[in-house]
Amino acid sequence: MKIYYVTLNNTDEARQIGRALLECKLAVCVNWFPITCAYSWQGEITEEPEVVLIIKTQDGYALEIEKLIQEHITYTNFIAEISPTAVNQGFVNWLNAEVSPRSQ
Amino acid sequence: MKIYYVTLNNTDEARQIGRALLECKLAVCVNWFPITCAYSWQGEITEEPEVVLIIKTQDGYALEIEKLIQEHITYTNFIAEISPTAVNQGFVNWLNAEVSPRSQ
Amino acid sequence: MKIYYVTLNNTDEARQIGRALLECKLAVCVNWFPITCAYSWQGEITEEPEVVLIIKTQDGYALEIEKLIQEHITYTNFIAEISPTAVNQGFVNWLNAEVSPRSQ
Repeated sequence: MKIYYVTLNNTDEARQIGRALLECKLAVCVNWFPITCAYSWQGEITEEPEVVLIIKTQDGYALEIEKLIQEHITYTNFIAEISPTAVNQGFVNWLNAEVSPRSQ
Repeated sequence: MKIYYVTLNNTDEARQIGRALLECKLAVCVNWFPITCAYSWQGEITEEPEVVLIIKTQDGYALEIEKLIQEHITYTNFIAEISPTAVNQGFVNWLNAEVSPRSQ
Repeated sequence: MKIYYVTLNNTDEARQIGRALLECKLAVCVNWFPITCAYSWQGEITEEPEVVLIIKTQDGYALEIEKLIQEHITYTNFIAEISPTAVNQGFVNWLNAEVSPRSQ
C-alpha cells in the first residue's frame, strides 16, 4: 500500500479533500494535523500555518489522487508518496475491503 | 533502523503503549501527537480525533511491537513500517546502547 | 528528493534551524509541529514536549543539513532521511528553482 504526505493551506481543505478521496474510493483512511510551514519563493522566506493530510490507500492510485487534489486547490503544494516496507495484516484486509486492489 | 507510524484512539493509549515499548526494550524513543482521522467502513465515512504514535527502533522487532500493541487495543488500527535510507550516527549509537541489534 | 524527519527540543529551535536551512539554500520548505516524546536513557524513561521538523530538499544535502543542525544544538537528536517513491511534478519544479540539484 501507499501513504501520501500532502500539505494544504488549512483544515477545511484537508477535510474536504480527505472526504472526497474516501467518497471516490481513492483511499480507506486519511489523517490531518496542523503544522507551521516556512518556505523559499524567489529569494523570500514566508512562514504560515498549514495542514498535513496523510492519505492511506492501495498502490496504483497516485494519478487520480493528485488530480482530485488539484481540482480543489489553485497553488503548488507537496504530494510525496511513501512506500512502507510492511503494514499490519488487519489494516491490509480493511483496505482491500474498501478500496479495489489495482495493478499499477 | 525502523520507524513505525501507528494510529491509536487517544493520548492515554499512545502513552501507555509507548512506555510499555520502552520498558520492554522494544524501542529507544517514541513520539505522539493528536490528529483528526476520517475513514470508510462499510460505506459510511466516520470522522474522529485520534493520535499518531511514532516508534523508533532496531530492525527485526516488528512482530513483537505489533503483538504488544494488539494486547492494548481491541480494534484494527494502522501499523506502517517505514525504513529510513539514512540516520545520523549519534542516534544509531544511542539506539544500539538501549535496544539490542538483531538480525531479522 | 529527500525528506528529513528531525526531532528538536522546542519551536524556537525548529524555526531557527528551519529558516537557516532556507537561507543557506539547503531546503526549499520546512514544516514543524509539536509532539510529546518519551525515551530511554541509561535505564530511565523520560517524557517531555518536543518538536518535529520536516525538511524537504534535493538529494545530496544530508551532510550539510546534519552539520547545520549540530551547530544549533548540544544534544543527540534524531535525523532520519526518508526517500519518497514519487513526488508531484509541480513541487519538483519549485524545488529545482530554489535548491541546486546535485549528484550525490
